[in-house]
Amino acid sequence: MKTKLTGKSLLSSSAVKKLRIELDRLKVQAALFFKRSDIFYLTGMDTAGVLIIKEAEALLYYPATEREILTNKNPLKIKLREYITALPWKEIFNRIGQTGRPGRTGCLEIALDIKGLDFKRYGIIKENCRNILDLDGFVRDMRVIKTRAEVELIKRSASHTVKIMDSIKIKEWEGKTEAALAGYISTRTWENGMSGPAFTPIVSTLKNSVYPHHIPGRDIIRDLVMIDMGSKYKGYCSDLTRTFILDKFINDSALNGFYESLERAKENAVSVLKPGVRCDRVYREAKESLEKDNLADYFIHGLGHGVGIDIHERPFLRAGCKEILKEGMVVTVEPGIYIKGSGGIRLEDMYIITKKGSQKLTKKYL
Amino acid sequence: MKTKLTGKSLLSSSAVKKLRIELDRLKVQAALFFKRSDIFYLTGMDTAGVLIIKEAEALLYYPATEREILTNKNPLKIKLREYITALPWKEIFNRIGQTGRPGRTGCLEIALDIKGLDFKRYGIIKENCRNILDLDGFVRDMRVIKTRAEVELIKRSASHTVKIMDSIKIKEWEGKTEAALAGYISTRTWENGMSGPAFTPIVSTLKNSVYPHHIPGRDIIRDLVMIDMGSKYKGYCSDLTRTFILDKFINDSALNGFYESLERAKENAVSVLKPGVRCDRVYREAKESLEKDNLADYFIHGLGHGVGIDIHERPFLRAGCKEILKEGMVVTVEPGIYIKGSGGIRLEDMYIITKKGSQKLTKKYL
Repeated sequence: MKTKLTGKSLLSSSAVKKLRIELDRLKVQAALFFKRSDIFYLTGMDTAGVLIIKEAEALLYYPATEREILTNKNPLKIKLREYITALPWKEIFNRIGQTGRPGRTGCLEIALDIKGLDFKRYGIIKENCRNILDLDGFVRDMRVIKTRAEVELIKRSASHTVKIMDSIKIKEWEGKTEAALAGYISTRTWENGMSGPAFTPIVSTLKNSVYPHHIPGRDIIRDLVMIDMGSKYKGYCSDLTRTFILDKFINDSALNGFYESLERAKENAVSVLKPGVRCDRVYREAKESLEKDNLADYFIHGLGHGVGIDIHERPFLRAGCKEILKEGMVVTVEPGIYIKGSGGIRLEDMYIITKKGSQKLTKKYL
Repeated sequence: MKTKLTGKSLLSSSAVKKLRIELDRLKVQAALFFKRSDIFYLTGMDTAGVLIIKEAEALLYYPATEREILTNKNPLKIKLREYITALPWKEIFNRIGQTGRPGRTGCLEIALDIKGLDFKRYGIIKENCRNILDLDGFVRDMRVIKTRAEVELIKRSASHTVKIMDSIKIKEWEGKTEAALAGYISTRTWENGMSGPAFTPIVSTLKNSVYPHHIPGRDIIRDLVMIDMGSKYKGYCSDLTRTFILDKFINDSALNGFYESLERAKENAVSVLKPGVRCDRVYREAKESLEKDNLADYFIHGLGHGVGIDIHERPFLRAGCKEILKEGMVVTVEPGIYIKGSGGIRLEDMYIITKKGSQKLTKKYL
């Protein structure tokens, strides 16, 4: 994903500073980052590759294919090294430190965020380093609390998404294909000067709406249509779902009842969004609300997820998640019910956790 | 990704049979598969989750969100178990075998394709199993050689993609935005009764075409436009790139020269596509061809990749890849050059390795 960058890094220098203090505490020579969104967070550069933070320097190895988007977009003046297709592991380990054993390219103590690292890469690193310390989500812990600058970008991203959703005159799409509407949404997302869709839009009409991750097809929009879409703005994602019940169905009492139950479940969940509340508590609030209407069995996924540089990131509002909500976290709340023969309904908005509660982000700001 | 399934599995029963023989040889209780494309390959069901192959039974744990696409689509009559959001690890290990140590949920010998497994999941498995054997690409080795039925689906996928590309009257898009054209392509891909785009289309006009992975934006198409697109057909991907040089540029001698050099490099690479040839040899053929025209430095990525259920899979035609081409492999050949100030050009087709050479797949069949 290419992202148009901001010209200056959002929070990179302070994040890198905190990271260096942590490396000093861990007594390691360097920390390595492979995840694109971590690299963007720390450097302001949206690229694949590997970022190496040492005490005295920061180095970014990037694939040559990313060359054009990095030119003139290096706010922290990080040293850049280019490679073609394969990471130059030997050079990387040599850069970090001198070899201690003959035949080995390195004998290093490094820090990594091990969770999420693929096993093959882990194997290569283990082979070349004496000691690997787990950063254990150090950067993810920083990322989960959004800075003021990040909140501003997320608000703009959300605002753009709301505008696109609002521009859909659903009556005009009745009788057209899901594919056509998904194409319209994609074009609008690409065209509004941001960085395109945050994910492939979901557009599902009645019989398809019971499948939460439906891919748009040539089915004709009628009766009911669910739209789940998001866009990126300068690297930051937004996420929004609406379900429209069309004329023929507007008087279907069952469907209207389901819709009201779902709205209530969403409101109840939002009412407990505040610092100090455990994530699974918010999920349960929605679940229990649906239980009262005998609809809990049709709610077959988590309630929400964090949103930031990644469209799905911590925290996760789902069963078993013990993470505690804190001020500055941004989450979706998106209960859904999927009833074969009746239809699927999902409603989703984004919220930021404030000092005493939460505030909806998916609205028009500009 | 949802895929409309074929109703009967393509090769699952023979693949599962081969796998069981391998498990017997390894003397393990079960093999576990987490990769969506492996699950689809082995079962005919396109779902997330975990597939467990034991000697006497096969079991598929799938997230409840996939429920609707699995109904009536279970050609091998595999036992299905549903879960919500989190894998029921304890139940899974209990299903595989009885615990041998108190307090542990399992004491098992299992086989996994360890490469590519994320470290967190590997940790959970290691914690619960006495012995993990590496399947070491056993299923990927099967997948890399396409069966006749798979080739048929890939041909249809490629044919659809070619038809969409051919339907683009590029003169009519001059003056419109990249975003609008990308939206058109997406709609056509979703609308043709397949399973949608194989990836987000790349549409890049002159100044953007120097970035190989450009995301479409509101820039106006003029002078030159590169289109890289693909679709899925019943779970199988296709991939095609064309670069169009528009009127004003048609007489630009430098650009025309680059285009001819690139065509030549592509032809030279295709001429060595045959069984027994090493993948990096094909890459070098293109690179050396461009070297003669002093353009090799502008070729900044690999030459091609395998295509099948995944859009990028083995084998990889790039520097250092020692894999040997075999009959039945399907690859892209896509040299590109990216020259700041002039423009980027990439040309891509798909080929199948035949007994004595190769055959182009990206053409109209239907």
